Amino acid sequence: MSFVDVIAKKRDGHALSRGDIDQFVQGITAAQIPDYQASALLMAIVLRGMSDQETFWLTDAMLHSGERVDLSDIPGIKVGKHSTGGVGDKVSIVLAPIAAACGVVVPKMSGRGLGHTGGTLDKLEAIPGFRTDLSIEQFKDVLRRTGACIIGQSASLAPADKRLYALRDVTATVPSVPLIAASVMSKKLAEGGNALVLDVKCGHGAFMKAEPDAAALARLLVAIGANSGVRTEAVITNMDAPLGRAVGNAVEVVECIETLKGDGPPDLTALVIVLASRMLVLSGRFDERGAEPAVRGAIASGAALDRLRALVEAQGGDARVVDDPGRLPRAAHRRPVAAPAGGYLATLQADLLGRASMALGAGRQRIEDRIDHGAGILIARKPGDPVREGDTILELLYNDDRGLDEAAALAGAAIRIAAEPPPMRPLVLGRVA
Amino acid sequence: MSFVDVIAKKRDGHALSRGDIDQFVQGITAAQIPDYQASALLMAIVLRGMSDQETFWLTDAMLHSGERVDLSDIPGIKVGKHSTGGVGDKVSIVLAPIAAACGVVVPKMSGRGLGHTGGTLDKLEAIPGFRTDLSIEQFKDVLRRTGACIIGQSASLAPADKRLYALRDVTATVPSVPLIAASVMSKKLAEGGNALVLDVKCGHGAFMKAEPDAAALARLLVAIGANSGVRTEAVITNMDAPLGRAVGNAVEVVECIETLKGDGPPDLTALVIVLASRMLVLSGRFDERGAEPAVRGAIASGAALDRLRALVEAQGGDARVVDDPGRLPRAAHRRPVAAPAGGYLATLQADLLGRASMALGAGRQRIEDRIDHGAGILIARKPGDPVREGDTILELLYNDDRGLDEAAALAGAAIRIAAEPPPMRPLVLGRVA
Repeated sequence: MSFVDVIAKKRDGHALSRGDIDQFVQGITAAQIPDYQASALLMAIVLRGMSDQETFWLTDAMLHSGERVDLSDIPGIKVGKHSTGGVGDKVSIVLAPIAAACGVVVPKMSGRGLGHTGGTLDKLEAIPGFRTDLSIEQFKDVLRRTGACIIGQSASLAPADKRLYALRDVTATVPSVPLIAASVMSKKLAEGGNALVLDVKCGHGAFMKAEPDAAALARLLVAIGANSGVRTEAVITNMDAPLGRAVGNAVEVVECIETLKGDGPPDLTALVIVLASRMLVLSGRFDERGAEPAVRGAIASGAALDRLRALVEAQGGDARVVDDPGRLPRAAHRRPVAAPAGGYLATLQADLLGRASMALGAGRQRIEDRIDHGAGILIARKPGDPVREGDTILELLYNDDRGLDEAAALAGAAIRIAAEPPPMRPLVLGRVA
Repeated sequence: MSFVDVIAKKRDGHALSRGDIDQFVQGITAAQIPDYQASALLMAIVLRGMSDQETFWLTDAMLHSGERVDLSDIPGIKVGKHSTGGVGDKVSIVLAPIAAACGVVVPKMSGRGLGHTGGTLDKLEAIPGFRTDLSIEQFKDVLRRTGACIIGQSASLAPADKRLYALRDVTATVPSVPLIAASVMSKKLAEGGNALVLDVKCGHGAFMKAEPDAAALARLLVAIGANSGVRTEAVITNMDAPLGRAVGNAVEVVECIETLKGDGPPDLTALVIVLASRMLVLSGRFDERGAEPAVRGAIASGAALDRLRALVEAQGGDARVVDDPGRLPRAAHRRPVAAPAGGYLATLQADLLGRASMALGAGRQRIEDRIDHGAGILIARKPGDPVREGDTILELLYNDDRGLDEAAALAGAAIRIAAEPPPMRPLVLGRVA
């Protein structure tokens, strides 16, 4: 079938065949299908949708467009983790050492921050010397030695996704649950784990603003995992306000270390315990009752912190930061953002704080932007807290004041004070298994 | 607004502003918007539609992307004509001389045949020496001298349409009533006439297969004309079977000459009289009662045939063909296609006969294909005619037998015999003014 006929099929609301989808993905990978045809099909998919079966085929074709990491020669059950992206989302840095301390192998490939969401790689690179550009062999070597390793996505994994994502970004074809799900899962399945825990973010600071959309994405991600023989669970979590009390890079690493010491903020700690428990259950090493105590034990005993130390060292970083966070980059200046009125902090809008952090230099607008690892935001009050007029709600941390006024304006807009205690959504909104 | 936001707006079902549409068309014309963004927006338009207001703005922007022919220094009312394309549609070649003979100036820019529909330019070029590539000044000179001129579309008219059409063709974004209407009308309005008669074809051999679709297109075309101050009427006509008894190039010119002599096939003659009458009425020179007798008079008196002779000569062609059609190219061979059974000829499916004619060499699959002006099909029996088994229904005319078997197969498939006289749709299905 000519590719124009494939486009017309989807345009007219019909399901694509496995052959159509293979033709598309192979054509994209080999750069044989021109971008203008690919983008027309992508828009037709955004507006006409895809069935689960079509999405399975798409994921599979994207997965097979590149290499799949073979972890079979590493002993143990490998459980991956992925978050759909939020503000202040440092969970992986806490989670991987905990799961590793409990005997689960955590092979983790992460992305960089772009727009208002931060990236795990950028946060880890705040640690002097830390390398995220390991080869697959080095990655496997660290996994063998420490039970966890966090690196950047290899270019050889799911190359079709890279070309498609770049095209979707400039053609307004990002918002499609099947396309998002196939993109996430083709990469995660290529990482070669036996099971996968997904943190599907929902709210102001997440791509999915509404719970039904997040639930639909979670359901599809889990179905794709099952279809590929990888046991997958998704937890839908609230991303209206940033997670924890720090947004940025070095400040988030500090918060991760505190959390592994048992001194983390309640929301981050609670989420890490939920996700780590699910990883332990999926690994088969723990049952539903045993998982959470094991997670809490790994924190209390210091075993998880030891794993972080080992991981940082194995990836070339200065492991002394774990005991002396003062060795991390710092911002030279602080500017407080005060409560404009008394009452209760009703909203701390995550996406606006993410943009404020970016304006301070902690994130990037374009892929080529450099990051100031010391910049960021500290959160003094969380939604639900009572506040008096003039109380410090946030502290903006910066070295370069070029973006300070913009950041202050965004931070101010993120704050809403109410006379009554605000209704609060739970942190965990749902779970799909 | 960034162009990605414009695409997202239409993707989400919102109306584009005049500024959005101008940005699109200017970006297309200057090649500043990449094809992959243009095709994503086109697919969003196909699936989300456009309001009349958006379509008016799109047409206007496309019209202003290039030159608009100024015919104000030519005396008389100029009335254009356009057909949405069919099989055996030679109407313009008969119509232009008739209207000119009645004192209406007919500036006509035509297209070439592609796929199963033939093109007026290809038919006229069957006449030895006939030139369709006149400059605008030469075009106006012929109009002044003969009252009618038929040339190819100037590249300087609506250049945005040329780029958009080429892109739509390879991205499955052709079938959209607003996009089709804006494409047709931007070109027709650029031709500079005062009024316009449109022949919107409907049926097997037309782009619009169903009457409601043809009616929607006709309504929109007329609305765009009115919005631009050009009095426009559309006649919706049946294109289930080819028009007349000839499909091809030279054979269609012969049929045009016969029709101007009063010896044409009834369907072609009837349609020409309807369309010519509407042109006369729109010109303001004739009222509703006076138009048709004037048309019939121009045929009966030979005045219309004289105009064809003058037009052919003015455009460099051998005008002797009008009196001696034997001077036109001919096919060396004929193959009859016989009725497979007795009964009534129920269907003579226009699109299949168009493709058969193309296979014989009379049309082109790709824009660069050469045409055999002598090849084509003669139609011995029309739908509704009683037939006996073995009667000749069609004659395939060819010089090169490479496509003969394919043409015979297509022609055979186009024929359906029924035991009872078939229900017949009228030739004129509706009129929109």
